[in-house]
Amino acid sequence: MYNPLLLPDLRVMLEENDTESLTEFCNVLHPAVAAEVLDGLPSEDILKVLSTCEIGIRVEIFEYMDLPQQVDIVELMGREELSALIEEMSPDDRVDLLNRLDEAHVESLLPLIAQAERSDIRKLLSYPEDSAGAIMTTEYASLPQDITVGEAIQRLRQQAPNRETIYYVYILGDDRRLDGLVSLRELILASPDARLTDIMRRDVISVRVETDQEEVAQELARFNFIAIPVVDKQHRLVGIVTHDDVLDIVQEEATEDAYRLGAVEPMEDSYLESPLTEITWKRGVWLMFLAGVALMTAQVLQQYEEMSQAQKWMILFLPLVLASGGNAGSQSATLVIRALALESLTRRENVRMSVRELLIGLSLGGGLALIGLIAAVTWFDLDWSHAIVVGVTVLLVVVMGTVSGAMLPLMFKKLGMDPALMSNPLIAALVDVLGVVIYFSVARAVL
Amino acid sequence: MYNPLLLPDLRVMLEENDTESLTEFCNVLHPAVAAEVLDGLPSEDILKVLSTCEIGIRVEIFEYMDLPQQVDIVELMGREELSALIEEMSPDDRVDLLNRLDEAHVESLLPLIAQAERSDIRKLLSYPEDSAGAIMTTEYASLPQDITVGEAIQRLRQQAPNRETIYYVYILGDDRRLDGLVSLRELILASPDARLTDIMRRDVISVRVETDQEEVAQELARFNFIAIPVVDKQHRLVGIVTHDDVLDIVQEEATEDAYRLGAVEPMEDSYLESPLTEITWKRGVWLMFLAGVALMTAQVLQQYEEMSQAQKWMILFLPLVLASGGNAGSQSATLVIRALALESLTRRENVRMSVRELLIGLSLGGGLALIGLIAAVTWFDLDWSHAIVVGVTVLLVVVMGTVSGAMLPLMFKKLGMDPALMSNPLIAALVDVLGVVIYFSVARAVL
Repeated sequence: MYNPLLLPDLRVMLEENDTESLTEFCNVLHPAVAAEVLDGLPSEDILKVLSTCEIGIRVEIFEYMDLPQQVDIVELMGREELSALIEEMSPDDRVDLLNRLDEAHVESLLPLIAQAERSDIRKLLSYPEDSAGAIMTTEYASLPQDITVGEAIQRLRQQAPNRETIYYVYILGDDRRLDGLVSLRELILASPDARLTDIMRRDVISVRVETDQEEVAQELARFNFIAIPVVDKQHRLVGIVTHDDVLDIVQEEATEDAYRLGAVEPMEDSYLESPLTEITWKRGVWLMFLAGVALMTAQVLQQYEEMSQAQKWMILFLPLVLASGGNAGSQSATLVIRALALESLTRRENVRMSVRELLIGLSLGGGLALIGLIAAVTWFDLDWSHAIVVGVTVLLVVVMGTVSGAMLPLMFKKLGMDPALMSNPLIAALVDVLGVVIYFSVARAVL
Repeated sequence: MYNPLLLPDLRVMLEENDTESLTEFCNVLHPAVAAEVLDGLPSEDILKVLSTCEIGIRVEIFEYMDLPQQVDIVELMGREELSALIEEMSPDDRVDLLNRLDEAHVESLLPLIAQAERSDIRKLLSYPEDSAGAIMTTEYASLPQDITVGEAIQRLRQQAPNRETIYYVYILGDDRRLDGLVSLRELILASPDARLTDIMRRDVISVRVETDQEEVAQELARFNFIAIPVVDKQHRLVGIVTHDDVLDIVQEEATEDAYRLGAVEPMEDSYLESPLTEITWKRGVWLMFLAGVALMTAQVLQQYEEMSQAQKWMILFLPLVLASGGNAGSQSATLVIRALALESLTRRENVRMSVRELLIGLSLGGGLALIGLIAAVTWFDLDWSHAIVVGVTVLLVVVMGTVSGAMLPLMFKKLGMDPALMSNPLIAALVDVLGVVIYFSVARAVL
């Protein structure tokens, strides 16, 4: 996105093997911008550029690259070079990367990495995917509580260079128990002689290491934190999750939900980075399933063939009946899924939501039924009895769509599954099959 | 969500007019938690609790409440009390609130507010909704460049109490021009005698005051910033947007996109806070529109009545034909809209996306066509010629759905409109009408 004009220059430098200018390139640009510019080059060339820059900057630029890009580059690297890179990377980013490499490769690298880093890696790799443990970093700033503010700032100065953030400082007791929190702002404001015990906050809000990442994001957002501490069962501090990682998680979860709502299986990478075959497959499975449902609808329609022969007008209103139920159901599912994504709802709120959906379903169904009825009589010259069949069916189908659209995601959530699995097209498909049955049953009852 | 057990205690304190305990309640809890607990009380009682706490804490708790809640409380307040509250609020939050009150009310309050705050409010109120100017705060930390690090920390100590963040310090030149940036971490690490000019970064990444909030969020996320500075045309610093506000924006935009994809008009407040009538209306308009499209489909079907009488099997496959096109189109729209929400795409990426969608459409269409064809022959005992009509139609409809699902959001974006306006059900509806035409045209051509 940024400075696409730099790319030709970069190519010339590479051709001329102009190491000095390449190092300059790494030093001058913000690493995020450098990573974006490099994205335009083949992996071999990216590696060449990176190897000209100082290790600290190399790692920074590398960390700003997308994971598939990182994997491509890593595969071109020698073991020594790669283990040096991994040793320097921040704990959360390197675990994300290692999770993408095959196990044998990772095992062959670990012996080259310093002992402390190695055990850190093994520990972080052991947490389940999407848990607080899997996304946290272990590079937090921490202090004991029995020191003064002046000492604290001195010690922070030593910790600062390799901590993800020093703006929140965690106060640890025996056995690394999380006893308190003090922000750098508070340290700056306090008198240098004050003791940390006197200024620290004690009821520190934290998440557990096994907490789902979506909930971690909700908690950090609730309190507007820069970072949220992660503790184990014994309330020992094991890591922190920072605001920038939470922003990524929120985007990732929103994308996942949107995909599910749109009947696309979520993918690990962004659209343009995923291979065509993967996208086709992740859409194809849903389309095939939905085609199956449509064929079931056809089977059901076949059952009513005699009736639809006698009542030809019924076919004309089939699209209206099916679309109304499906659309109303999609709306409900969307609203419920989004509400669940934004915060954890209490049981009372769940009930309130279901009641609301029922009421809304009744009024929307009533309104659409009226439209259908009037259109049937005036626009399509149907008998009143026929028009009533259309109206009643639309009402029933919309209520059914709304209620199932709202209840199914809530049920899924309760069962510990992703509520967004109840995708819109899936609800539409369910409504299709049941809608046909309702339509012909109503017709049979009325006529 | 938190501590629902506190609510009964709170009610007792209120009944007994136990001011001391109420003040204690405000002081002890994190303001975010206090706001959530208070949410369970009627507005009159919330106001009573808030009036027992010290103004600083009162404002903090108040700012953590949802906007509709804030408005309810404000309407119960006297002018003096309210203007004191507004004066203390942070600039971005108070502008959000004032935007919700009617203009006459705001004008009656302004004279009671201190001159400096008043002009700040007027200025922020003047920026267009959803622009960087409308979401930024003016409480940033800033310093001149000709001082030492030691002096800088001294001055920051004075600024700290009423700055949104002091972790990024902006270095201003003449006329408040944004000349540099230094983080508090860098200040802590630097020698106290070093001069700011020597340690500050000069190429500060900033956004313009008129930049759309979605782009502001993308920029902050790109660089993992805690805050991003906002400048005017003359590159003068006018405010900052902080990470917590960006997180809210990202959630807000994701909700808006999800709603649009689900054919619900976006609402200002969350689902449970919006009045039933509003939700019903915001869904109703879309449902009515979509019902209109379904009635058009009915009209089109009527045109082909003679043919569908002669070829009764055609009706059975109508759900499959329409669902396949609609679902494939929804998938494409979802993928494109999400990609656009996550980053600004270059023209090359746009083209790549369209080509990919065409290829995916062809393979998905081909696959589904095959399924339809086989099902028609085996399951429904159709002639080969009839089955071929089904297959060819499915292929054409899926390709049409995919291409329009991908192109329409891109077109909308280009026209400066919200790409998510091209909602999934709208695409499904378009596919419905055209799908019927294609179906019968193919049948006419083949048979």
